[in-house]
Amino acid sequence: MQTVGFIGLGAMGAPMAENVADAGYPLVVYNRTRSRTEPFAERGETVADSPAEVAERADSVVVMVTDDEALEGVLDGDDGLLAGLTSDTTVIQMSTVTPAATEAAAEAVRDAGGRYVDAPVSGTVGPAEEGTLTVLAAGPEALLDSVEGILAAIGEPIVDCGAVGDGARMKLFVNLLLGDMMGAFAEALAFGTSQGLSYDDMLAVVEAGAVDSPLYSIKGENIADGDFEPRFPVDLQFKDLRYAVDEANDAGVPLPQTAAARETFSATSGLGHGEEDMAAVVKFFENVAGLSVGERES
Amino acid sequence: MQTVGFIGLGAMGAPMAENVADAGYPLVVYNRTRSRTEPFAERGETVADSPAEVAERADSVVVMVTDDEALEGVLDGDDGLLAGLTSDTTVIQMSTVTPAATEAAAEAVRDAGGRYVDAPVSGTVGPAEEGTLTVLAAGPEALLDSVEGILAAIGEPIVDCGAVGDGARMKLFVNLLLGDMMGAFAEALAFGTSQGLSYDDMLAVVEAGAVDSPLYSIKGENIADGDFEPRFPVDLQFKDLRYAVDEANDAGVPLPQTAAARETFSATSGLGHGEEDMAAVVKFFENVAGLSVGERES
Amino acid sequence: MQTVGFIGLGAMGAPMAENVADAGYPLVVYNRTRSRTEPFAERGETVADSPAEVAERADSVVVMVTDDEALEGVLDGDDGLLAGLTSDTTVIQMSTVTPAATEAAAEAVRDAGGRYVDAPVSGTVGPAEEGTLTVLAAGPEALLDSVEGILAAIGEPIVDCGAVGDGARMKLFVNLLLGDMMGAFAEALAFGTSQGLSYDDMLAVVEAGAVDSPLYSIKGENIADGDFEPRFPVDLQFKDLRYAVDEANDAGVPLPQTAAARETFSATSGLGHGEEDMAAVVKFFENVAGLSVGERES
Amino acid sequence: MQTVGFIGLGAMGAPMAENVADAGYPLVVYNRTRSRTEPFAERGETVADSPAEVAERADSVVVMVTDDEALEGVLDGDDGLLAGLTSDTTVIQMSTVTPAATEAAAEAVRDAGGRYVDAPVSGTVGPAEEGTLTVLAAGPEALLDSVEGILAAIGEPIVDCGAVGDGARMKLFVNLLLGDMMGAFAEALAFGTSQGLSYDDMLAVVEAGAVDSPLYSIKGENIADGDFEPRFPVDLQFKDLRYAVDEANDAGVPLPQTAAARETFSATSGLGHGEEDMAAVVKFFENVAGLSVGERES
Repeated sequence: MQTVGFIGLGAMGAPMAENVADAGYPLVVYNRTRSRTEPFAERGETVADSPAEVAERADSVVVMVTDDEALEGVLDGDDGLLAGLTSDTTVIQMSTVTPAATEAAAEAVRDAGGRYVDAPVSGTVGPAEEGTLTVLAAGPEALLDSVEGILAAIGEPIVDCGAVGDGARMKLFVNLLLGDMMGAFAEALAFGTSQGLSYDDMLAVVEAGAVDSPLYSIKGENIADGDFEPRFPVDLQFKDLRYAVDEANDAGVPLPQTAAARETFSATSGLGHGEEDMAAVVKFFENVAGLSVGERES
Repeated sequence: MQTVGFIGLGAMGAPMAENVADAGYPLVVYNRTRSRTEPFAERGETVADSPAEVAERADSVVVMVTDDEALEGVLDGDDGLLAGLTSDTTVIQMSTVTPAATEAAAEAVRDAGGRYVDAPVSGTVGPAEEGTLTVLAAGPEALLDSVEGILAAIGEPIVDCGAVGDGARMKLFVNLLLGDMMGAFAEALAFGTSQGLSYDDMLAVVEAGAVDSPLYSIKGENIADGDFEPRFPVDLQFKDLRYAVDEANDAGVPLPQTAAARETFSATSGLGHGEEDMAAVVKFFENVAGLSVGERES
Repeated sequence: MQTVGFIGLGAMGAPMAENVADAGYPLVVYNRTRSRTEPFAERGETVADSPAEVAERADSVVVMVTDDEALEGVLDGDDGLLAGLTSDTTVIQMSTVTPAATEAAAEAVRDAGGRYVDAPVSGTVGPAEEGTLTVLAAGPEALLDSVEGILAAIGEPIVDCGAVGDGARMKLFVNLLLGDMMGAFAEALAFGTSQGLSYDDMLAVVEAGAVDSPLYSIKGENIADGDFEPRFPVDLQFKDLRYAVDEANDAGVPLPQTAAARETFSATSGLGHGEEDMAAVVKFFENVAGLSVGERES
Repeated sequence: MQTVGFIGLGAMGAPMAENVADAGYPLVVYNRTRSRTEPFAERGETVADSPAEVAERADSVVVMVTDDEALEGVLDGDDGLLAGLTSDTTVIQMSTVTPAATEAAAEAVRDAGGRYVDAPVSGTVGPAEEGTLTVLAAGPEALLDSVEGILAAIGEPIVDCGAVGDGARMKLFVNLLLGDMMGAFAEALAFGTSQGLSYDDMLAVVEAGAVDSPLYSIKGENIADGDFEPRFPVDLQFKDLRYAVDEANDAGVPLPQTAAARETFSATSGLGHGEEDMAAVVKFFENVAGLSVGERES
C-alpha cells in the first residue's frame, strides 16, 4: 500500500487525513503550525519537518491548504514540495485554488519530474469527517485510477471533471452556486422577517417545496441557534465568489446576482464577521434593516 | 359534504379542482374562457355562468386566478363573487396576489357577509396534479379547520402562516427564493459552460452536494432537453420578484441579489421568452455571452 | 392676463407659485395644510377652500403635489379639481407622477371638458426659487403656447417632450440618472475614504475631470458640511427609482445599476434617513463599512 | 534643463511626450513597437533600444504603459529600467496600475538607488493632446517639486494626493466614478429610448440640469454619431472597475452599483466591443432590449 503524504491539517485537512489513515494508508504529515500534527504522531504516523521531506518519503502527496498563496508556499523554496519530488511522486492538489494556480502548480510539478492530480473537494467539515466530500478529480485517467483508493477514502462521489484545471473550475462553479444560494436565503429570511412571518414556518415552507436543499436545512437551524461556528467561513466563501467573478469577467459572462452576492459577503466581512460561518451573511441584513432573523416561537 | 365552488381553471386551477372533486366534494365551476369547464361538465360537475352564481350555489369557493387584477375582476361587478355571497360562504383565495390585494379582498368579502381564507399554494403543475402543493393557509383557526378537507385535497403540508395576508406574504417569501435560485443556477451553468465544464458533470456535482435541490434536478433536466414548456412561466416568476422587491422597498430591507434577479427576468422577458418556463432565464446568459448551455455528452 | 390657480404649496410649489405671481399673474392658491397659504394671502393673492374652487376661479391651474395618490386626491371628489372645471380651464400638471397617472389625469380632465398639459419639472428647491427649473412640457403645441408665460415664469429651458405622458417619462429618465449618479458618488466617496484619500482632494479631482457635474459640487459640499437638509429627500428619489425600474420592467429593459441604486436608497430609508436629502445615501456606506465620509482637512 | 525619458508612446503616451518636448525638455524615448518612436526621431529626439538605455540617459523617466504586467515588463530584466537606473534618476510612473503594483515598483526603484513619483493621470486622448490631464501626483513634496515642470507640461491641475500609492488610489476613485456614470448614462438612455423619448430631448434635459457633465456631452454626441473610436476603451474601463471592486472587497466596503456596472462592462466586452470606446456599453442594452439608442430627429 502506498505511503501518503498529507500537507495541511486544518479544519478540513485533519479529518481528511484521518480518513486516509483509517483506510490503511501509512501517512507522512506536515503542517506549518506543528501542534496540529500531534494527533497524528499519537496514532503512529510520521511527522515531517518540511514539505520537501513529505515529498521524499511519500508515494503520493495530498495538499490541502487555504489558497493560491499557501499552495505556492508549500511548493516553492528549499524546503518546498518541489525540492523533494522524485519521478514517481504524485501530487494530489485538493485545496480550493484558482484554475491558473493549479495549472501553474501542475506545470511546476511535472517540470520537477512528478505527476499531478487536480482534485479539490466540495463540502464542509461534516462531510470531511464522514468521508462524503464530493471529489472533483481532474487529470489523466490512468493517473486518477492510480490514486483512486486515496480519493475514495476522502469522499464520494468522485466526479471526473476532465483535464488539470477543470477540477478547480468545477469547484468555482459549485461554490459560486453555494454563495449565491446562501445570499439568497439570507435575503429571503430578512424579507420574511420584515413581513412578520414566523421563522419556523418559513423553514417548513422551504423544506416542503422545490427550493428545499440540504444547505437551507443546515443553515436554517444554525441561524435559529445563533450558531455561527465556521464550517465554511464568510471570508473563504467570499474569496471563491471573487475568483469566480474574476474568471467570468475574463470570459465575458455577466453574473449580476453573483456580483451582488459578492458585495454582500464583502459587507459582512467588513462588519467583522469574516471568520464566522457563511450563514453570518444574514447579519448584514439584520444590521441594515434593523431585524432579528431566526427567532423561534416558544 | 359541502359543495365547493371553483373559479379559475387554468394550468394550476384545473388539476387542483379535479383533486377536490376526486376527494368527493360536489363542484360548481366557473372559468372566463368557458371551454376550460368542459372536462368538469363531462364528469357531471355543475358549470356556472358567473362568479356570482358560484357564490350562490357553493358553501366554499376556491379562487385560483392570475394576479391582483384578475382577483378584483372575479370579486367585483354585478356578476361578481361578492354579489352572490351569502353569510355562510367561505372564500378560499389561493391565487398568488399581493398582501394588499388579499387584505382588500378579505375586507370586501367580510363586508359582504362572507368569510375569508388566505391560502396561496407553492408548487407548479406537477404537484398540483399530484395534490402535493404546499398550502400557505392564513386566517382564523376555526375557519381553517372548517375547510381543512378541501385544502388537504389540494396539497400537503398545510402550513398555518398566521392572519389573513400572511399567506400572501409567505408566498412572496418562497417565490423570492425560487426566483433567486433559478437565476443563480442559470449564472452558475453559464459560468461553468464558459469554462468548458461538462453539463452532466455540473449536474452530478450539484446533486452530490449541499446545494442539491429538487428545483435544480428538474430544471437541469429541462434545460438539457431544451424543454421550456411553462410549468411556471418567466413572466409569472418575474411578477413575483417585482411584488417581493416592492414590499421589501416599503420595509426598507435591501435585496441586492433579488433586485439583480429581477433585472435578469426582465431582460429574459424582453428577449421574448416571457411565456416560456422560468428555466428560460438561462437564455439571457446564452444570448449575452454567446454560449450554448445544456449540451450533453453523447 | 390670465388668472393662475396653484394647488400644492410645498417646498417646491411655494417658490414656483411666487415666481408666477412675480411675473404678474393673479393667483388663486390652495393647499391641504392651509397655513402654507398665508404668505400668499399676505401678498394679496386669493386663497381658495378647495381644488374645485381653484378650478372655478382660474383660467389655468398648476398642480404641484407629491405623487400619484396626491394627484388623484386633488382631482377627485365633490371638492375636487374635476368638479370645478369649466371648458376653458387648462390644467398644468407639474408633479412627479407616473406616466400612467398623468395619462389617466389627462383623460379625466378632458372628459370633464378641460385641457391638459403634462409638465413636470427637473430641479430642486434652489432652481425652484430662482425660476431655473427645467420644464419638461408635453401636450398639443398650441396648448403649450397658450401657457408659455406661466411655464417661463417657473423655469427654463422649456423642453417640448412630445405628447401627454412624455413629460412624466422624461422626468423618470432624468431622475433615474440623478439617483444613479448620487449612488455612484456615494460609492466612490466611500471607496476613496476607505483608501485613505483626502476628501478635498477627491472633490478637486472630480471637478477637474470629465465626471464633473453640478450635482457633485453641491452634494460634495453638503456632505462635508454634514448638511442633509432635504432639497430632494431620499424617499422621493427612491420613489422615482421605483417608478423607473417598474416602467423598464414593463418594457423588458434591464437596469442593473439602477436596480442596485434602488436597493441602496431602500436601505438608506430603512436606516431612518428617508426624509433627509438624497445625499444621505452616503450614510448607508458609512454605516456598513464603518467609515466617516466628508472629513475635511483642517 | 533635465533630459526626460519617456517609455510608452501609445494613444495617451505619445501626445503626453510631445507636450513634454514642446515645453523644451530633450527626450529619450522608448516603445516596445518601435515604429511609434518615428515621429519623435523625426523631430530630433533620441530613441533608445531598451528601458535600461532610457534610464541611463535621462534625469527623469516617465512611464506610461497599459497595466501592472506592462509596468513590470518595463522595470525588470537585463534591459529593464531598473538595470539602467542611477542614483539621480527619478521614475515618474503615470500608468493606471494597482496601488500594490505602484508600491512594489517604488520599492524596487528605491532599492536600485532611484527616486519614485506615483503620478497617474485622469483624462482621455483629447486632454492628453491639450495638456489638460488631471495629474494625480503622490510622493515626497521636494521630489514632486523637482519634476513639477514635467508634470505641468502634461496636465493641470496637479493634485497632490499624498504618499506613493495614493496616486493610484485616486485614479481608481475617479475611474470607478467614471465607469459608474457611463453605465448609468447607458441605462438612462436605454430606458428613455424604450419609452419613446427623443434622443435630442434627452441630451437637452441632461445638459440643463444638475446631472450635466462633460462626460455626457461628449459621449452623448459620440453615441448619436455612432462614433465608438476608442478614446478610452471598454476593456480599460472594465479593468479599472475590476481593480476598484477588488480593493473595496479587501476593505469590506460594498459597492453594489459599481459591481453591477462591472458586469455590464463584462458583458459588453463579451459581446465583442471590448476595444471600442467605453460609450459602447450602450450596445449591451441595445442588444438585450432590442433598442436603437441615439437616433436623431431629422
